[in-house]
Amino acid sequence: MRIVLLGFGSVGQGIARAIHTKDLGITITGCADSRSGVVDDAGIDIGAALERKQKTGYCGDTRITPMDVVATAEYDVLVEVTPTNVTTGEPASSHIRTAIERGKHVVTSNKGPIALAYRDLQAAARRNGVCLKYEATVCGAIPLINAMQEGLAGNTVTRLLGVLNGTCNYILTRMSEEGLTYEQALMEARELGYAEADPTYDVKGIDAAIKLVILANTVLHLDKTLDDVETTGIDLLTPDALRLADEQDCTIRLIGEIVPGDGVLRVSPRIIPKTHPLVVEGTLNAVTVETDMAGEITFIGRGAGSTETASAVISDLLSIRDRYVQGS
Amino acid sequence: MRIVLLGFGSVGQGIARAIHTKDLGITITGCADSRSGVVDDAGIDIGAALERKQKTGYCGDTRITPMDVVATAEYDVLVEVTPTNVTTGEPASSHIRTAIERGKHVVTSNKGPIALAYRDLQAAARRNGVCLKYEATVCGAIPLINAMQEGLAGNTVTRLLGVLNGTCNYILTRMSEEGLTYEQALMEARELGYAEADPTYDVKGIDAAIKLVILANTVLHLDKTLDDVETTGIDLLTPDALRLADEQDCTIRLIGEIVPGDGVLRVSPRIIPKTHPLVVEGTLNAVTVETDMAGEITFIGRGAGSTETASAVISDLLSIRDRYVQGS
Repeated sequence: MRIVLLGFGSVGQGIARAIHTKDLGITITGCADSRSGVVDDAGIDIGAALERKQKTGYCGDTRITPMDVVATAEYDVLVEVTPTNVTTGEPASSHIRTAIERGKHVVTSNKGPIALAYRDLQAAARRNGVCLKYEATVCGAIPLINAMQEGLAGNTVTRLLGVLNGTCNYILTRMSEEGLTYEQALMEARELGYAEADPTYDVKGIDAAIKLVILANTVLHLDKTLDDVETTGIDLLTPDALRLADEQDCTIRLIGEIVPGDGVLRVSPRIIPKTHPLVVEGTLNAVTVETDMAGEITFIGRGAGSTETASAVISDLLSIRDRYVQGS
Repeated sequence: MRIVLLGFGSVGQGIARAIHTKDLGITITGCADSRSGVVDDAGIDIGAALERKQKTGYCGDTRITPMDVVATAEYDVLVEVTPTNVTTGEPASSHIRTAIERGKHVVTSNKGPIALAYRDLQAAARRNGVCLKYEATVCGAIPLINAMQEGLAGNTVTRLLGVLNGTCNYILTRMSEEGLTYEQALMEARELGYAEADPTYDVKGIDAAIKLVILANTVLHLDKTLDDVETTGIDLLTPDALRLADEQDCTIRLIGEIVPGDGVLRVSPRIIPKTHPLVVEGTLNAVTVETDMAGEITFIGRGAGSTETASAVISDLLSIRDRYVQGS
């Protein structure tokens, strides 16, 4: 199976490294970062591209753009892992549309296109007889989309509850364990690389809300946008609130919730018993899916990280290989 | 898609009810319990069979045996949910072999054939171009087999740790929470229907060991039997041991472990921190899979129950429908 890889940051490099070191039957015929690209229909030299990127910051030739790679290379699957833009979805959306119109399957970790344009992209994929997969857009390494589409097939989901943002979970864990203030815990998270210089996107609950929109639209058959999510962040929480919860053997976590029956999507800090499976430590993610037959199923794992995201992308690739490209 | 259903106890009835009430595109053309059967190539009357079973104890005609149904009915998939025999695997193994030789797919919740004869059955399925699925044999409603075969595809599993027996977990939870003795907690579990009159199979760790053998042979590419599992039960645990663990913010759980690298399979009571995701309450099951790319992924859910087992069987059926039988 031949793929092209757009985005050669930490996730893209993680994917390239996994394909380079594991015997997965996958050949990379093109890759690009935002400023350079390389195409070789016989298979690029992955080791050389990784080394070039490390040394020069470019994975290929500066005359080759990402769109050149999508539009001209020979491949079965586009892997789109460029940085997320949740306002426009670009340039990822254009890359994905171009690949689909060329009759290529698509695997992406990019939340932008899936949160903003899932229905359109899925319709285009159907028209062109190709597959669009996006396991890596929600909860990193946790195979949640696969579980909801296949492992729990036949079930009706009555509610979904999730700890969807590792940064917030780290801050709340530290406030709870050590009695830190929000500001102290945030500073610690920054020092450890768990929070950005501008943490708004995480601590205001926006990142969690985007993941809810993706889950709602892709596996729960709703049609929602970010504006439909009632969103409250964790930035106003006090150590007192956590102490109060603690006195009742509870703690506070930022919980994303979907109730498919009444179409509600909500992100807010919630008091939950410490023994609840959703109470996970540090930067972990956790999701509980409530269903009519399987009861409550909880999934816990790392929600971010280059290798973890690569894991989700590669499982999507292997699924496409086994179903659609086996003969090629 | 047409199926026949062998086994019409609580699991079989759960499956029949789900097919009867949900619009899954599945027709049951035959079913049987151990003493009666019914075949109708146009689709049996599921409601009538359920009512007959409730009223008389027979789902069909006493002149029709399960083997008659497997060997003569028209169907795409055999659903084999007769009671488990872990010594011989019979009569389930014979039912499954007969169906496979007729070119029929098979879905089973029956641990016997999968623990004893997985390689042979899988080889026969391949020769006959059909699919053998067994999600329901391990951890009930938790879509663990699917996750390990698909959601985590491409990963190398370095270790698997699991709370695989709900009866033991209930007993240990109660000993820990209430300071009960093993005997007191077992009596309580019996009263609530969580433990059999003869609890040996559960409390000695045999049930958990069988699940390890299934996971080892089916998704971890090992070749193990029950004799290969180092098995210690929970029946000698004292409240003192649990109190001691509690003093270190730990508790004791019956943990099944597989280390694929050195081929070790082990079931034993282990001391683990209370904050570990495997520490679940009551009759829940939990499994942590340690992998090279995805890190540690934990799955928590109900490991038993007729609706929960039906959920796993139906997800297998829908997977076969979508991949193999869509046109029929």
